[in-house]
Amino acid sequence: MRTIDWVPADGPGPGHIRMVDQTRLPDTFAELRISTVDQLVDAIQRLSVRGAPALGVAGAMGVALAVQTLPTDEVRTAVDRLRAARPTAANLALGVDLAWAQAQRGGGSAALDAALAMRDEDIAGCRAMAARGAELLSQLLPDRPRLRVLTICNTGALAAVEHGTALSVIERLHDEGRLDRALVCETRPLLQGARLTAWELSRMGARYELIVDSAAASIMAGGGVDAVLVGADRIAANGDTANKIGTFALALAAAHAGVPFLVVAPETTVDTATASGADIEIEDRGADEVRAFRGVPTAPADAPVRNPAFDVTPAALITAIVTDRRVVDLTAHQTPAGRSVNVGPSLNEEEA
Amino acid sequence: MRTIDWVPADGPGPGHIRMVDQTRLPDTFAELRISTVDQLVDAIQRLSVRGAPALGVAGAMGVALAVQTLPTDEVRTAVDRLRAARPTAANLALGVDLAWAQAQRGGGSAALDAALAMRDEDIAGCRAMAARGAELLSQLLPDRPRLRVLTICNTGALAAVEHGTALSVIERLHDEGRLDRALVCETRPLLQGARLTAWELSRMGARYELIVDSAAASIMAGGGVDAVLVGADRIAANGDTANKIGTFALALAAAHAGVPFLVVAPETTVDTATASGADIEIEDRGADEVRAFRGVPTAPADAPVRNPAFDVTPAALITAIVTDRRVVDLTAHQTPAGRSVNVGPSLNEEEA
Repeated sequence: MRTIDWVPADGPGPGHIRMVDQTRLPDTFAELRISTVDQLVDAIQRLSVRGAPALGVAGAMGVALAVQTLPTDEVRTAVDRLRAARPTAANLALGVDLAWAQAQRGGGSAALDAALAMRDEDIAGCRAMAARGAELLSQLLPDRPRLRVLTICNTGALAAVEHGTALSVIERLHDEGRLDRALVCETRPLLQGARLTAWELSRMGARYELIVDSAAASIMAGGGVDAVLVGADRIAANGDTANKIGTFALALAAAHAGVPFLVVAPETTVDTATASGADIEIEDRGADEVRAFRGVPTAPADAPVRNPAFDVTPAALITAIVTDRRVVDLTAHQTPAGRSVNVGPSLNEEEA
Repeated sequence: MRTIDWVPADGPGPGHIRMVDQTRLPDTFAELRISTVDQLVDAIQRLSVRGAPALGVAGAMGVALAVQTLPTDEVRTAVDRLRAARPTAANLALGVDLAWAQAQRGGGSAALDAALAMRDEDIAGCRAMAARGAELLSQLLPDRPRLRVLTICNTGALAAVEHGTALSVIERLHDEGRLDRALVCETRPLLQGARLTAWELSRMGARYELIVDSAAASIMAGGGVDAVLVGADRIAANGDTANKIGTFALALAAAHAGVPFLVVAPETTVDTATASGADIEIEDRGADEVRAFRGVPTAPADAPVRNPAFDVTPAALITAIVTDRRVVDLTAHQTPAGRSVNVGPSLNEEEA
């Protein structure tokens, strides 16, 4: 399954974007046919497409659509509108900028080529993470032919193009007959685990169990988990990792239970300009997500809420970081005085 | 506010039970007038009344109702039906048995006296826990005039009669001007924290913030919490404590952050017949609670779910257990080789 793809026209004329409408999951699997920039902006704003890699590809394909379908004097405005469709989504702007630079040199076909290259790189990168992660688990747990792995949020194809990050490792284990089961944290407040990851695992025929987030620690302590696999929103130079709220609690529980804790994320997530997790600002997403779910109140209507979207897991609690280019073994770098690993400058330490 | 109480008749004839209808919280505050055993059984089964102490009092008052309102030959059947209204609620059966024993000796007025004594003992016990807990926090945190405390589930008046267990300590802090704020875990899957504890804190005018359960650990690590206060479903002889799922994860995070972790529960919760947490069986409450909330799907309809209702927090992670009769300081009993405290036999070690 590709979350987003380009469909060439049958004859002459522009093609279109095909994407899974994630707003309708898990109830309904439906795909959108996006033929105009207006439709794409609407799809992005309604969160029909989400996830950094998918948004990057969407932005680049949108530039191709703009150049191929609009009068020349309207293209620039459309591209700007697309770029601003979700202001905090850095990858959307990056994808738009990259394709727009190509479009100015080589027109619509150059923009499309850039978008397709971005799509293919994402697919290849996810495959590389899947292979490295699965191989690392063999090394860490040589006596476990079938693994019980725990994950949080959605790090699957729905956040990328064809595979994902942490979930691509689980998919690989499943494909290789090495998955006993995946334990999926539902991931409050927006329930991406329950809605999206459960749906993806079901679709791939993998055995899984959905749990409330707060059950993960005791299940780990009871010996029910062999490894924890999570994605990342940002990885600081010292290996501290910002990810979905709840990730830090999982890392604490994994350390307590002696369970390997792996971060799986593309190399682009490593931000060497950020020295440590202390420099990462945590966004508060406001009260509405916690006070109600799909319009059903879950708390008093005026309940004050603290809703941090992310937390920071210190490198000391991370066993390894797996990217599309390498495995950073953080346990090997740990010193009694604290964390001294620097993820940034070791980029050429390719280990896989 | 009393969650449940007995209202004497204006003139001759039986009185009735008045109880908060918890099924309508937090949207609506409404009280039920219960004049028959049938109404009471229905209220218990619909979870209009819940929480061990409140159910015990409900059972005892129900026996008084039965004896006072039914023909003699129907009383026994009604009492049996009441006793079985929620088979897993041990306190309901205990309350029924206690009042029924009195009824057989002294009739309806003796049953009612027993019920009112149980009500008054619960109120006094909660007050004692509140006082001991608040005093202990002064001793543990002498340099913090105002405390930020974190709690899970509902341990307030709604689970008892007039006060509660852990939440009664928070109420006491608030009354004494020592509460900076309470952080309330929403408590998936049934959201008792979001629905009930938030409502109680709001009603008492206490400052609070609602959080998703998985945010607690990182807020603690960030220095945002001075103490964690939780209730208990069962306390084993060695101090291991079974409580709402998620409690163990909070204890881990508290230990990591160096935050005191207090269990507040009535002495009746201590089960000396259970040697340790390993002997406590954890009930799985099935998939429906996790797959949907108030009828709104939160996951694929056929998602496999693991839904443990409770977890066990080892005594080693508990700072102290506060009951209506004593404070058991577990840190003082800790040995490097592990836990050696025995909560049971030290019953006469009254410390407060």
